[in-house]
Amino acid sequence: MAAAPYDAGSRTVQRGRPRDASRDDALRKAALEVMAEVGYRALTMDAVAAKARAGKATIYRRWESKLDLVIDTCAQLANQNLPSPDTGSLAGDLREFLRTFAAFLSGPIGKAAQALVGELPHEPELAAAFRETFLISQRDVLRGILDRATTRGEVRADAPRGMVVELAGAALTYRLMLTGDPLDVPFVDRVVDQVLLPLVGQPS
Amino acid sequence: MAAAPYDAGSRTVQRGRPRDASRDDALRKAALEVMAEVGYRALTMDAVAAKARAGKATIYRRWESKLDLVIDTCAQLANQNLPSPDTGSLAGDLREFLRTFAAFLSGPIGKAAQALVGELPHEPELAAAFRETFLISQRDVLRGILDRATTRGEVRADAPRGMVVELAGAALTYRLMLTGDPLDVPFVDRVVDQVLLPLVGQPS
Repeated sequence: MAAAPYDAGSRTVQRGRPRDASRDDALRKAALEVMAEVGYRALTMDAVAAKARAGKATIYRRWESKLDLVIDTCAQLANQNLPSPDTGSLAGDLREFLRTFAAFLSGPIGKAAQALVGELPHEPELAAAFRETFLISQRDVLRGILDRATTRGEVRADAPRGMVVELAGAALTYRLMLTGDPLDVPFVDRVVDQVLLPLVGQPS
Repeated sequence: MAAAPYDAGSRTVQRGRPRDASRDDALRKAALEVMAEVGYRALTMDAVAAKARAGKATIYRRWESKLDLVIDTCAQLANQNLPSPDTGSLAGDLREFLRTFAAFLSGPIGKAAQALVGELPHEPELAAAFRETFLISQRDVLRGILDRATTRGEVRADAPRGMVVELAGAALTYRLMLTGDPLDVPFVDRVVDQVLLPLVGQPS
């Protein structure tokens, strides 16, 4: 299942005028809204241009294709919205990270991610890019949290660290995409207190 | 988020000739294949009819709409493929149920379920029916497993039972739909041994 790392930068086209970062953000926001409304397959560059009140040529100056636009949008949003908390305790870091991640998933990015997920089996390039950006960003933050907790002596030597990282993402995604139950603070705190801390923490 | 229970039976149309169960199964199999190929939105009764070498009227004699056909297909498959193991131990029951469920999800039903998930935000009736059939069937089996284990004294009094039921579904679905990592027996056994049993079992 290993895929070549996706380098969003190398796919971004640059020609003509220098890029305007706030304009790019407006275009990404429009792409996200269109994707949340109609899904990836039905998304067109025309619809994104109309939503952003921009010309289609403006979009194509920045992104080669809708795949590039969608993946760059997901990558930027993940980078901008995933915190790397360092509160000094495992419980504090997990709570802060997962509460913020849950709030982020409850917004338009969550709807867009859900629309993407339905397409992954048919779109291997999209699947590889989605995993290399969206999934790996949050996995890396969780691994960093566990590394710092290990240094502080908060993690059992035989803790199933990989499984805990996977479950944190799974628990939030399952509510968001399948059950539809609320991704709220009480739920996130239950995941931390009833599952993640008991599985990795030192016995109290 | 509570939805009215979905009664697949009441939506199934019966008129004219008596129903032929094996013919129905062939039509459901065709519906599943078409959904795995093109997704829910693009599925048409014509495509299902062509795949099953049946007339469209034959399909409409059995199901009122594509929503009815798809939901009845998911419900039937879940009923036919989800075992209710009773091995005499919590570990044995969890392993047997989740190995079988993982194998079931790794086949065409998993692809079809993934295609459905992308549509749930836009299709509230589909979402309610998906949850009332597919999700609740597996949740009920897991609850039964925990109930029997509780009677045998294998479950701690303060075990987070609801969370364990939710996580079992979440762990399998996350691999299937998001990470793409294999849903194989070693993974399922790690979920049981590293996560589910430690969270609910008596301390050893």
